Amino acid sequence: MDREISRAFLIIPEIREFLSQNDREALKEIFYAYEPVEVAEILTEFSLKERVLLFSLWNIDFAADVFEKMEKDDQIALMGAIDEARRGKILNELAPDERVDFFEELPEEMVNRFLSIMEREEARDARELMTYDASTAGGRMTTEFASLKEDITVQQALEELRKTAKELEMIYYIYIESRYNHLVGVISLKELIMAEPTTKLSEIMHTKLVTIPIDMDQEHMAAEIAKYDFLALPVVDNRGRMKGIITVDDVIDVIEEEDTEDMYKFGAAGEHVEDYMSMRPTLVARNRITWLLILVVTSFLSGLIMQKFSFALESMIALSFFIPLIMGSGGNAGTQAAMVTVRGLATGEIRMGDIWRVVRKEFLIGAMLGGGLGVLALVRALIFQKSSLLGTTVAFSMIITVTAATCLGAILPLICKRLGIDPAVVSGPLITTVLDIASLLIYFRIAIFLLGLS
Amino acid sequence: MDREISRAFLIIPEIREFLSQNDREALKEIFYAYEPVEVAEILTEFSLKERVLLFSLWNIDFAADVFEKMEKDDQIALMGAIDEARRGKILNELAPDERVDFFEELPEEMVNRFLSIMEREEARDARELMTYDASTAGGRMTTEFASLKEDITVQQALEELRKTAKELEMIYYIYIESRYNHLVGVISLKELIMAEPTTKLSEIMHTKLVTIPIDMDQEHMAAEIAKYDFLALPVVDNRGRMKGIITVDDVIDVIEEEDTEDMYKFGAAGEHVEDYMSMRPTLVARNRITWLLILVVTSFLSGLIMQKFSFALESMIALSFFIPLIMGSGGNAGTQAAMVTVRGLATGEIRMGDIWRVVRKEFLIGAMLGGGLGVLALVRALIFQKSSLLGTTVAFSMIITVTAATCLGAILPLICKRLGIDPAVVSGPLITTVLDIASLLIYFRIAIFLLGLS
Repeated sequence: MDREISRAFLIIPEIREFLSQNDREALKEIFYAYEPVEVAEILTEFSLKERVLLFSLWNIDFAADVFEKMEKDDQIALMGAIDEARRGKILNELAPDERVDFFEELPEEMVNRFLSIMEREEARDARELMTYDASTAGGRMTTEFASLKEDITVQQALEELRKTAKELEMIYYIYIESRYNHLVGVISLKELIMAEPTTKLSEIMHTKLVTIPIDMDQEHMAAEIAKYDFLALPVVDNRGRMKGIITVDDVIDVIEEEDTEDMYKFGAAGEHVEDYMSMRPTLVARNRITWLLILVVTSFLSGLIMQKFSFALESMIALSFFIPLIMGSGGNAGTQAAMVTVRGLATGEIRMGDIWRVVRKEFLIGAMLGGGLGVLALVRALIFQKSSLLGTTVAFSMIITVTAATCLGAILPLICKRLGIDPAVVSGPLITTVLDIASLLIYFRIAIFLLGLS
Repeated sequence: MDREISRAFLIIPEIREFLSQNDREALKEIFYAYEPVEVAEILTEFSLKERVLLFSLWNIDFAADVFEKMEKDDQIALMGAIDEARRGKILNELAPDERVDFFEELPEEMVNRFLSIMEREEARDARELMTYDASTAGGRMTTEFASLKEDITVQQALEELRKTAKELEMIYYIYIESRYNHLVGVISLKELIMAEPTTKLSEIMHTKLVTIPIDMDQEHMAAEIAKYDFLALPVVDNRGRMKGIITVDDVIDVIEEEDTEDMYKFGAAGEHVEDYMSMRPTLVARNRITWLLILVVTSFLSGLIMQKFSFALESMIALSFFIPLIMGSGGNAGTQAAMVTVRGLATGEIRMGDIWRVVRKEFLIGAMLGGGLGVLALVRALIFQKSSLLGTTVAFSMIITVTAATCLGAILPLICKRLGIDPAVVSGPLITTVLDIASLLIYFRIAIFLLGLS
């Protein structure tokens, strides 16, 4: 997607002016009118010293909100530079899930130092969240949710909420917990507002709950929330106790992350790292070399096949002219089919039960595509090589290669999925390389048969 | 992402039981306990006749919610089969944005018939929404938002909301409109609940608003909402009048759609169509053939190049054994680099201003990768062909090809973007085919020079 420069960048000259005049009041007011994410963008234009000054002016709520939106590197630099009292206050004020994301970038020793200057309860909370794997529901959830007991009235619930709302990330769903912290129900704030003030929560709450197990992986978790169109889902441990919530904005981040990962796999581009722009070239190269090496070794096989059939090439050098065409068409047709299946499995459009229907369909598609391209190749051979036998060889090879490529491209991701491997590892380059070998074998066999070479 | 079978499927035997007993009360109660999306999933297991019966039992709210979650084909069949009175009621009750999505699948004549049985105001609303392009903010927005005047108090606002909440999709942000429907402010329900009951809305509303222009494309729109972490953003026309809202669940759909489109482009798989499983193979084939034809024509060029240099191949047939290796490595390295830039531009990780840094970086990465693979190719040539000259030829070709491929893969998407073309058209197959030609030229030139062929 396309991101544009923020409207907030327009106020940068004004801010510089206020900074040079040391006009503290104006520096507060001008920033407060903007959203934290915009302020974080603006800050990238200012020096660390200026940032420290600004963070010492702002109220803690606002400072924490802006801090959450900054880049990890800038967060670390800022935390190191501000004075300890303010540092502790900001750490206490951060959203629990954002705080853990920040801590995960730091060496353990520094985390412990930060935990030691935080309020006891917040520090305990952070320690608990850090025990969960970062890519599971536990690692993504926030612990600031609205929770009430079932035996109070709507009126009492609203009063209670009024008191606690400020601390909470999300008050639009209110979770009802039993005496033993078991999640027993949920009410939306909308329902609460519409209900009679004297009704008991237990009478109006929903009790068939959709919950996320605390160890569910983030991809699966995002799919659940996207499916239900809820603003948040509760996270429960294996004893049914409520531990936190996942909000819909976390889901957007997860979907973008997971799609990026899938695309990198499809491009055989190695692991996705967050900071491509600041990463050293040697590290990026190391990231990509593994796949290239695997593919090179497979290409060696293509070379060996050609070597084995060199007698055919020697007796008719024109055979070699069609090798790029046949290998290329197979690779491209296979890549198309693989893309459709990989993405179809990811979005749920294709299910495992559809496996035979997909294969049958792709077989027909492949035969049609192969037929079309085969005729084209035949025409080319007739025009440039004036050999109908060579033309027939190429045309037949094309039909068989493209059909096989399309089927293989479609079926490989399904097989991976059945074996419990992420279907996205079936990348374009992998398909291409595997098909190179297959198409050479097909081509030479047909050539030897039709042209009577030996 | 991974979707699993819903927990709701467990109740299917029970439902069949109730259907055979014609137990209408039980059929209502058992469904009401589940979420609309789950009910829509369950319905796929039942016949059209059974669906019609169920839709006639349920209350209209629930029926409309379930209808919204059904597949387009099933929606059309159901609407055709239920009686007209109920049909009109369900149409009136649908969320405006979902209703327009449904109408867009239908022939104009049928839409007019449906509009004629709807309430006047709902029909007018639907007609207006249909005038906007489906992939813009106007085509995505819903018109059911909470709107109040600025001169009322918090107390009055809450009372007003209590009355209207049932009709609205989203009451967690309340938009403040001037007398001329100009959007002048916004307050969250959270802020409203925390505020003093006697405060005027004008005193507490936010006035620096982030808005979405009604003609903004959906990709850009999704990026804006994802950036701000809001639950919804207001959509305004070019005179600043508020027309609707975009909610965060729309954004999730858009992101998945746009990512799918990008991936299809990268796999050169043609247009993404929603119903792969139900689409005829001929149509899928037609969808994919365009790219294959373009790539085949490019492959012809590779063949012509080989033909031109056939004298070199004739004097040393072993030269041909390395063609798959060199072409393959170039294609793969280029695909990797293209993937990183395409996705980086999409997520905003790489910006247009970074163009030279990216190229410099990819040049270094390419040289390292090419060097590594070149050494490997040299070793292979020494072992199997026992020719150090051929080995040197292959090694040099590898270094130059892979370096050029990496740079080209990285820079092509940036050039496209600058020219106003979607960078995602720089697909793996395109890169591979372009590089086939380049790598053959490089390889033959080096071979002729080093091996003294002519």
